[in-house]
Amino acid sequence: MMTRKTGHIALVGAGPGARDLLTLRALNRIQSADLVLFDRLVDPDIVELARDGAERIYVGKEVGRCAWPQGRIDRLIVAKAKLGLRVVRLKSGDPSVFGRACEEITAARAAGIEIEIVPGVTAASAAAASIARPLTERGETDSFVLTTGTARPGDAAPDRARLAHPGTSMAFYMAVQRAGEVQADLLAAGAPAACPVDIVERASTPTERHIATTLGQLAETIATQGVTNPAILFIRYPKSLAGALSDTPRGIFAA
Amino acid sequence: MMTRKTGHIALVGAGPGARDLLTLRALNRIQSADLVLFDRLVDPDIVELARDGAERIYVGKEVGRCAWPQGRIDRLIVAKAKLGLRVVRLKSGDPSVFGRACEEITAARAAGIEIEIVPGVTAASAAAASIARPLTERGETDSFVLTTGTARPGDAAPDRARLAHPGTSMAFYMAVQRAGEVQADLLAAGAPAACPVDIVERASTPTERHIATTLGQLAETIATQGVTNPAILFIRYPKSLAGALSDTPRGIFAA
Repeated sequence: MMTRKTGHIALVGAGPGARDLLTLRALNRIQSADLVLFDRLVDPDIVELARDGAERIYVGKEVGRCAWPQGRIDRLIVAKAKLGLRVVRLKSGDPSVFGRACEEITAARAAGIEIEIVPGVTAASAAAASIARPLTERGETDSFVLTTGTARPGDAAPDRARLAHPGTSMAFYMAVQRAGEVQADLLAAGAPAACPVDIVERASTPTERHIATTLGQLAETIATQGVTNPAILFIRYPKSLAGALSDTPRGIFAA
Repeated sequence: MMTRKTGHIALVGAGPGARDLLTLRALNRIQSADLVLFDRLVDPDIVELARDGAERIYVGKEVGRCAWPQGRIDRLIVAKAKLGLRVVRLKSGDPSVFGRACEEITAARAAGIEIEIVPGVTAASAAAASIARPLTERGETDSFVLTTGTARPGDAAPDRARLAHPGTSMAFYMAVQRAGEVQADLLAAGAPAACPVDIVERASTPTERHIATTLGQLAETIATQGVTNPAILFIRYPKSLAGALSDTPRGIFAA
């Protein structure tokens, strides 16, 4: 075997959870890695696919503990790649969708290290497949919005009012804690309380759960059913509901 | 081996093009299928993964020919599943994203046939990975919109004005022929001509091409570079461009 002079960094989409929703390319990269970094959202079954001699480093946070700061992750992957190692940074879902890949891409480039992004199945695709409801339906929804419930401290909150438009299908990532706010914003912007909502918790995993509700009952449903992240909230404002009332009774947590 | 009494239909995401961007689950379903239906957008390399004895049926259209009508596809997959066969309908990308899966789901359910959706990597994820530019960037874009350039005859054209909002990242599918219209609509709604655009043609295939341009030059670039579908047009309106002029010179095809 030839000695490698320079290493390689791959940001690899680990998919939504189920191990068999990995791509063949992701499997290849994991199996040929010298070092695998992963966090809480990546299934341990997937990390186990690494070869026996590969180093595995957990960089996520658990309740009550701190995650690795991003800068520490960046420095580690660059240092290891400079040693000639093949580094895989596993990202839940698809690295390009709320995967915060920018920092790692920038760090690798600044160090002159080759970086590859391996796309994955994003959680919204897996959730839609599980409930057999397409993200876009001809005639009813022509745009599909991926958005997140969280904003970085100091960032302006996302402007949700413009999403409240007939023909829009929305998937909210990591928005369980913000469901009341999302509901209130969309209703205030004129979306009907009758807009159908599908909540898919832990899509593609053995403990996946699907709950159907409406925009008007969203926050109440999340509270009474004890929904937790990771979950996808699908909110649809179909064209056929255009003009429906937005002020039908709201969930008690919506205010 | 036991005789199966009822068959099974799987709508399987074939991913964006490259065979190794199939998921392990998709590979499993293709390899265990008795019948595989596919269209023009699915790579022949993927269809070849079916076992030797499996029937392969091309249901797509080619230039100057008619595609199979959807109703004919629906009837065929239901009839074959009723014979006890395992039917795989391959869909380019992810079946839930502009995959027109509703009709097949409805037909299967009406006939009491079990239907499974196997999610896939959608073209936008593959294109973003290829150019190593995340679909969402913290602080700059908080919503990511998947939309299409085409509308069904008789449908209202998509309302693109509401997309022209700072903080929005857009991926247009199948929009090459409508690029002038998209450009004009977004500029008219106030999006700056300087909004960066990445065109990714045939993402993940050996003939993939990436062209960087701006919203103001979009249609002209597509014409002069001879871009054709399948292509993804990424148009970003970052928050940092809010307030920039929208009336800088436009491409000559934009009017």
